[in-house]
Amino acid sequence: MKAFIFDLDGVLYRGSEPIPDAVETLLALQARGVPTYFLTNNSGLTREQYAHRLQRMGIPASPEQFMTSAWATARFLQSWKSDACLFVVGEPGLREELHASGFRFTKNPETEAADAVVVGIDKSFSYERLRLAQYALLSGARLIATNADATYPAEGGRVLPGAGTMVAAIQTAGGADPFVVGKPNVLILDLLLQEAGMSRSEAFLVGDRLDTDIALAKQAGVPCALALTGISTRAEAEALPAELQPDYIWDSLKSLLPLLDK
Amino acid sequence: MKAFIFDLDGVLYRGSEPIPDAVETLLALQARGVPTYFLTNNSGLTREQYAHRLQRMGIPASPEQFMTSAWATARFLQSWKSDACLFVVGEPGLREELHASGFRFTKNPETEAADAVVVGIDKSFSYERLRLAQYALLSGARLIATNADATYPAEGGRVLPGAGTMVAAIQTAGGADPFVVGKPNVLILDLLLQEAGMSRSEAFLVGDRLDTDIALAKQAGVPCALALTGISTRAEAEALPAELQPDYIWDSLKSLLPLLDK
Repeated sequence: MKAFIFDLDGVLYRGSEPIPDAVETLLALQARGVPTYFLTNNSGLTREQYAHRLQRMGIPASPEQFMTSAWATARFLQSWKSDACLFVVGEPGLREELHASGFRFTKNPETEAADAVVVGIDKSFSYERLRLAQYALLSGARLIATNADATYPAEGGRVLPGAGTMVAAIQTAGGADPFVVGKPNVLILDLLLQEAGMSRSEAFLVGDRLDTDIALAKQAGVPCALALTGISTRAEAEALPAELQPDYIWDSLKSLLPLLDK
Repeated sequence: MKAFIFDLDGVLYRGSEPIPDAVETLLALQARGVPTYFLTNNSGLTREQYAHRLQRMGIPASPEQFMTSAWATARFLQSWKSDACLFVVGEPGLREELHASGFRFTKNPETEAADAVVVGIDKSFSYERLRLAQYALLSGARLIATNADATYPAEGGRVLPGAGTMVAAIQTAGGADPFVVGKPNVLILDLLLQEAGMSRSEAFLVGDRLDTDIALAKQAGVPCALALTGISTRAEAEALPAELQPDYIWDSLKSLLPLLDK
């Protein structure tokens, strides 16, 4: 039996709306003692905050079950330069994860130099932040992106601009190629597995995006399912070359349960 | 004798600072009766406002001498759909040019549909504007960019994020390819020449960017000079294939004057 690794946005919820069958499926897995983990490119909240969010939905969860692109970025930065001074374009959750890992911040790279510009989803993104990020990059800072998702799914079937849109603006302004920590980089999966004490052969990944979740699983040789409750569609999946297609395509997470009896 | 067509940012001024020798050279040209025009990708001001700006620097100028990406975008949109409803990401000058050409605007594409999203430099750019532009594009609006300059030159040797950074964010969010009206699109040069009653063979172009000014001149078969007072450097110019190199590279606009005697 595998451990199941779930994406969050578009798999368990869309904004404030739980996705039908998600809570029931998670509870059924936990009742049968199946290990569950959560792997999100969203850097908006800390692992503690995501655990609380699932608890409020009725899913027992602890921070150790979560791998976020914010936490993975902190790990990556520690291995690169543990005393780095960072200019952060992102939400408070990203700052909190980086702060908890001991990093210093500069609010103005013009007066205090940044070693890296770290970019995640930022609903307070502005021209001024873009300008300061550009200044840092043109002064030699490295560009690190938590993820490059162009969109993410929200309530009522809507989609919203993802971190990839901020990354596109900033890399254009600074003429710098980003290092992307999140999915589809296998780094973030391997960090999760390392924390959980598992190998790739024990994992099964469930996500809603072909270009991140499924691309990562295929690259890592991990079996995977595309949940049709978020961004990617069945037609998009079926248009891919066979070696890039998900092993399963599910309208509902409940489709997972029969796999447990195999 | 040719008519001289000057770029503005990085050729005549950087932000609030006039570039040395620029005023003197323009006055010398006008004293000798040489026709002068101005061609800018900057959509921040109207043609009237740019004429006033040069007048304040001491250069006699009238709006008819100017071709801006905002004015060219209005002409392009009239030829495409003269009753289009537009969602504009840009400065007041862009809105004014579009309004003067009879276009309607929507402030919220969620409640009033946009036929096109028009993007120029926008120092009030924000996540909310990005979100609304994305909504319009995903609903079928066309993406029109005044220009795609990644940067533009400002005071004190600084550079600032250009319209191309907003275009990058919005095209990523909406999954749409932009139609770029400004340089290096020859469309904007031909509009200028048409307004001035000239042909390409009568023009000489002076600019500071290889990827817009010089690329356009080379494509149009117009002789050109790179002014080293803005973005591009001599080393960057000399690294290009011969057919893309500017005909002249000038440290100062004064280098233009000996050409008049040829």
